[in-house]
This record gives sequence, C-alpha cells and structure tokens, in this order.
Amino acid sequence: MAGTVEQKLAAQGVVLHEPASPVANYVGFVRTGNLLFVSGQVCFDANGKLIAKGKLGAGVSVEQGNAAARGCGINLLSQIKAALGDLDKVVRVVRLGGFVNSAPDFLEGPKVLNGASDLMVAAFGDKGRHARTTVGVASLPADASVEVEGVFEVS
Amino acid sequence: MAGTVEQKLAAQGVVLHEPASPVANYVGFVRTGNLLFVSGQVCFDANGKLIAKGKLGAGVSVEQGNAAARGCGINLLSQIKAALGDLDKVVRVVRLGGFVNSAPDFLEGPKVLNGASDLMVAAFGDKGRHARTTVGVASLPADASVEVEGVFEVS
Amino acid sequence: MAGTVEQKLAAQGVVLHEPASPVANYVGFVRTGNLLFVSGQVCFDANGKLIAKGKLGAGVSVEQGNAAARGCGINLLSQIKAALGDLDKVVRVVRLGGFVNSAPDFLEGPKVLNGASDLMVAAFGDKGRHARTTVGVASLPADASVEVEGVFEVS
Repeated sequence: MAGTVEQKLAAQGVVLHEPASPVANYVGFVRTGNLLFVSGQVCFDANGKLIAKGKLGAGVSVEQGNAAARGCGINLLSQIKAALGDLDKVVRVVRLGGFVNSAPDFLEGPKVLNGASDLMVAAFGDKGRHARTTVGVASLPADASVEVEGVFEVS
Repeated sequence: MAGTVEQKLAAQGVVLHEPASPVANYVGFVRTGNLLFVSGQVCFDANGKLIAKGKLGAGVSVEQGNAAARGCGINLLSQIKAALGDLDKVVRVVRLGGFVNSAPDFLEGPKVLNGASDLMVAAFGDKGRHARTTVGVASLPADASVEVEGVFEVS
Repeated sequence: MAGTVEQKLAAQGVVLHEPASPVANYVGFVRTGNLLFVSGQVCFDANGKLIAKGKLGAGVSVEQGNAAARGCGINLLSQIKAALGDLDKVVRVVRLGGFVNSAPDFLEGPKVLNGASDLMVAAFGDKGRHARTTVGVASLPADASVEVEGVFEVS
C-alpha cells in the first residue's frame, strides 16, 4: 500500500518503478545509521529509455535537461522506496549532487537541476529542501544528459 | 557578537557576509545529526561579483583560481555562520569537494583548491584539515572558475 | 600483524602501501562518528607512478582505466589502514565517487570504475558493495586517468 508521500506523487502523475539493478559490484543504495546514500541515477525512464541523451549546450535544451533531471529524481525516489518500503520514512532530503553532461560553454546547470529539486519539494514539502551541488561534466554513462545522486536522512 | 574563530578571521581581513539565498527549491545547508552539508558555493564575492570567471588553462591563472577558491571558502564559512550562528561550533571540517572549471589540459587543480583549504586551516587550525577531492569540470554555473562544497562536523 | 581482510587481499596479490601524504592543508582521511571520509585518490601506484595517464577515449583504453581504478581502490584501502590500523574494522563500504578523465564522447565510465568496485568486494565481500556515482570529467590532477573518493562505515 502506498504511503502519503507516494499517494501525493501519484496525484501529480509521478509513478515510481522498480529501480534498475546495477550489473556490477555496486548497489543502488546503502544505509548507514540514519543516512541513506543513493547511487548516481542517470535519466532513464521506467522503460529504461533515456529521457534526454547528449550534451546540454550541444543539441539538448534546458527544458529537456530539466525533464531529465526530474527523471533522475524519480529514480532516486524509486531507490528510496526499494530501500525503505515507504517514502514516508524520509525525514529530510539532505543533499543532491547534480552532474550535467555539458558543452564547455553551457552555464545553465542550475535550471536543469531544478527538475530534480522541484520534485523533492513536490514529494516532501519543506523536508524536501536540500543542499545541492551542480556541475557540468565532460561525459556521463550511456551519454545520459543528467545524473543525480542523493543523501537522505531516514527513520 | 563574533566568536573566537570569526575574530581570528577578521584579524586576517576575512569578513563573512550574508550568504546568497538560492532562488530555487534548494537551500544553502542542511544539518543532519552532527553533520552539516553545505551546498556547492561558486566564487561570488560579498557583492555578488565573480572573483574569477572562465576556465583555468584558458585565460584564468592558477593565482586567480586560488583566490576564487578562497572566496568559495568564505562563502562556505558564511553559510556555516548562518546555520549555527557561531563558527566556534565547528568541531571539524570533514570534507571539501572542489570543482575547477578547466580546459581539458589543465592539471593544477590542487593548487587552485589550496585557496579554500588554507582558509579552513586559518579559521580552525588543525580542526580545519579535511578530506578533499579535486576534479576539473567542463563548466560551472554562471561560468564561475571554481565551486566548492563541504561537510562539517558541528556541535 | 595483518588482519583477515588484508591477508585475503595479500593472497590475491594486493599489497597495501604507506599512503602518500598530501603536501597541503588537507589530509588523507577524516573520521566523524562511525563514518570515515577518504580524500579523492588518483591512480598512483606504490611507487608514485601513474597507472594510467591521460584521457579515456583519447589514448587510454577501458582496460587501462579499469586497472587505474583498481589502483585508486588500493590507495583508498591504504588510507583506511592508516586511519584504523586494520581493514577488519570496516563495517561497510558506503559510497564510492568515481571521476574518469574523459574525452567528451567517452561513455564507458562504469566499466572503468568496476576496477575499484570489484576490489572492494574482493576485500570485504558483501560488505564491500556500495552506492556509487560515476562521471566523466574534463581533467584530473597530474593528468591521472581516474580518481576515486570514498565514505566508509567503520567500527
């Protein structure tokens, strides 16, 4: 049964999915004490298709990047659900680290990352506000346009 | 009233300022337990002007980058003061993550980041020594030359 | 005397070494509570020589990068031994952050990072499985091909 947070997301059309299992010697998340570290999530959708592919500033628009970052956020939430069973156990979104696949002259990373940040606040309200670091990187796995990792305080 | 650490900094000419408020769904810092996570700080000065703009290895010198990293450090300290009210509550600087806006052949990132690391030790002495990661990135928000994030143990 | 984990590694030909001391105002690791944050380790071998130098996708192969990431992992383990005296005190590998010195069209970062991830599982078994973030960066210190940082839960 979906908890309050998941119901609120569903009412906004956000559906969580079974997170992809890493095919190597790492995992989607690790809990230590009350902190949950979630692996960097690239912008695959529920069907394993990239929401945006390629570089911002070289063919991918800010709007497409923002949608991709939101998709990374859905993947983070899906990992949290797999970890805890219920998103209601999130006490606080502590930190998001955002990596934008960027041409060297692309400067609008924060507008891209807002796609993930806005989703966190849509899910958790004020508890969704987080510390954030946004940088533009030379390349990302699978040529994804965005990758986002997270640290969450959980009960 | 300024605490011991802030007085020591003032004696060295380092003045903290009201940190810039993020204009989106994230915040400057989040505390969880005794850890304070501070958002990535780009090298804006107290007046909101970039201390260095553009890429290291393509127009920005190591010296300018070092000054910019020091400015990121001042912004980190300003966020800590906003979070805790007093820098004396810092138990240990745990980790700095440094991102240098770099041409692909720029290799002197550590010399740049020393601007932030030296400031931490100037402020906190041995408690200011931290784990550090330095990488060269393709681009940064606003074309800032340096961005630094931090994790701090606080009381 | 080497603990169980170190003996297991030695049987696989993995020998730890005295970690390089940073020549600046930062340190190889900081412990806070039960978390050990280890500084980003570039792919120097025990003799201070880079295992791979230059960019993936521009002269450095995935195999060379994988060996370099494994070398970063050995450096992380060497830092942990310096911090704790015994690798057996590692309760869990929490997170690895992997930075691959990448040409803009290099997409195989995860295969590179597996060199570090596989080493963690070789050392710690299931406790070695970790959250992971892999990105391709514009440049790294000393033109190293790979840099890896880590967070570890320790006793």
